[in-house]
Amino acid sequence: MSRLCIGVDIGGTNTVFAAIDKDGKVHAEGHIPTVGAETVEGYCDQLAEAIRELRQGIPGQPEILAVGIGAPNGNYYKGTVEFAPNLPWTQVLPLCDLMKERLSLPIHLTNDANAAAIGEGLFGAAKGLSDYMVVTLGTGLGSGIVVQGQVVYGSTGFGGELGHVIVEPGGRACGCGRKGCLERYASVTGLVHTLREKIDASDEPSGLRFVPAKELEGSGISDAAKAGDKFALASFEDLSATLGLALANTVAITSPEAIFLFGGLAKAGDLLLEPTRRHMEANLLDVFKDTVRLELSALLNSNAGMLGAAALAWKEQERLSA
Amino acid sequence: MSRLCIGVDIGGTNTVFAAIDKDGKVHAEGHIPTVGAETVEGYCDQLAEAIRELRQGIPGQPEILAVGIGAPNGNYYKGTVEFAPNLPWTQVLPLCDLMKERLSLPIHLTNDANAAAIGEGLFGAAKGLSDYMVVTLGTGLGSGIVVQGQVVYGSTGFGGELGHVIVEPGGRACGCGRKGCLERYASVTGLVHTLREKIDASDEPSGLRFVPAKELEGSGISDAAKAGDKFALASFEDLSATLGLALANTVAITSPEAIFLFGGLAKAGDLLLEPTRRHMEANLLDVFKDTVRLELSALLNSNAGMLGAAALAWKEQERLSA
Repeated sequence: MSRLCIGVDIGGTNTVFAAIDKDGKVHAEGHIPTVGAETVEGYCDQLAEAIRELRQGIPGQPEILAVGIGAPNGNYYKGTVEFAPNLPWTQVLPLCDLMKERLSLPIHLTNDANAAAIGEGLFGAAKGLSDYMVVTLGTGLGSGIVVQGQVVYGSTGFGGELGHVIVEPGGRACGCGRKGCLERYASVTGLVHTLREKIDASDEPSGLRFVPAKELEGSGISDAAKAGDKFALASFEDLSATLGLALANTVAITSPEAIFLFGGLAKAGDLLLEPTRRHMEANLLDVFKDTVRLELSALLNSNAGMLGAAALAWKEQERLSA
Repeated sequence: MSRLCIGVDIGGTNTVFAAIDKDGKVHAEGHIPTVGAETVEGYCDQLAEAIRELRQGIPGQPEILAVGIGAPNGNYYKGTVEFAPNLPWTQVLPLCDLMKERLSLPIHLTNDANAAAIGEGLFGAAKGLSDYMVVTLGTGLGSGIVVQGQVVYGSTGFGGELGHVIVEPGGRACGCGRKGCLERYASVTGLVHTLREKIDASDEPSGLRFVPAKELEGSGISDAAKAGDKFALASFEDLSATLGLALANTVAITSPEAIFLFGGLAKAGDLLLEPTRRHMEANLLDVFKDTVRLELSALLNSNAGMLGAAALAWKEQERLSA
């Protein structure tokens, strides 16, 4: 009989989940809307039911060992999601307790970026590394930092919030209420903001001048940059300068062996990697130069949130049975 | 028969060492000049001989379990000191190997700031804490960061270099060859630099205008600030703003329970603590507000380098016998 863990990735719109074995192979997957229920209890009822159905649909009735959940603002220590601005319920949600009541299985929870880091370590490009980090570049910027094989949760459970390092005091307003956070510059949102500023400050022609934000947020800017649009290229250069410096500063603290980029923006590939690597190296202290690989996540085209959540469950099972 | 470890603190001018028990009690101490020998081998001969003499002078002939060494640019993994600008020999010095040959004892080595962090954890204010950091404010700025009870060495062994985080791109030239490093602003050197800039840019009277740098570097500026000198007070405020922001950014990464300030500048006490705490809190992300204690090291008036080096030896002995 095979043994599987369930990985759950809670996004603002949809919740996706899968039964995943120890090698990262997905045996079955499903999804429910995150926004379908009025209360968090109702949502957990739906999720538990959907997981039971998923299990029943797998031939040979595998044993489910545990459930891992990745969610924005997830707190590993408390098993809660706290004040997540993109979720329909914004108080402190005791998700681990609610799911444990419904499934009678061990439930583990962490934030989505930490889950991605754990998944990269178990199933991706960070296999065998003990010091590395994963940076997720999407609407915002998330990070999961691993030191000596352990995710850095810190005393609060919220460690690894690179997106909210202040890189420009008094700079762009951030959703967190402060100004100048890294994610206002180094994210899809930041890239679009920078591009708009550059185009608005210039009279030169650009095919991007009248493109709607929605398209720019997709692959619009990277396509234009690849086609040579100078505003798009300059925006990638600015983003990389800011991100490269922030990464160099983080290297001075945790000295990772590798940094993996993940998320929608990482799909820009060398357009992002080359200048970010260049700016990071230029800002590294001598002893750290040429010691850090900057690469794309090996899970870039899969659902790393789901894989990471399952990896968390596998890791916790291993730790508890050790 | 009592059991002791030797802690060695290698400074640019003097090397101090002591035989220290598991409770942090110093049973005997000694010192030799760091600059007295022409070669590093000669220096190690002198140090080994001095340690043997120290042991013989302790009543009851205690058992010496191990030697811990704290040194600038010390590398924990390799047991080397690499290109330390303040030491007379600037290549890669295999200090652990050299001392092992001479003493036939386990020898452990780390940089001085990491040693201070280990000492704070074993003998000082961080007893029982698993996530904390120690920031040493002297001529430069050193830091030792502890995550889940382990010093963050990273993949290179040089992790925890908060002093070389770039806080002002293109700013003040640093000894490391780059510009704008935190230690150019938040250190005794940085404080004197800021004060000079402020006085030179003003015609207003200040008792500090013609005070030689040497005196300012001592307690000159803090004495003047306590007496109400506006330039001195403004210089402490600037330093605290820079340090407070850098600490807030570090909290976003490692989320420590407490940060302990150490070194000559920390002796300024509330003059430094109050504004640094204020600026740190103002720059913290909501989830980290009021979660971090900022305090003075409990080892401020002792030789924390020596205690820390001995603490390293004790910790390694414990780890190896576990």
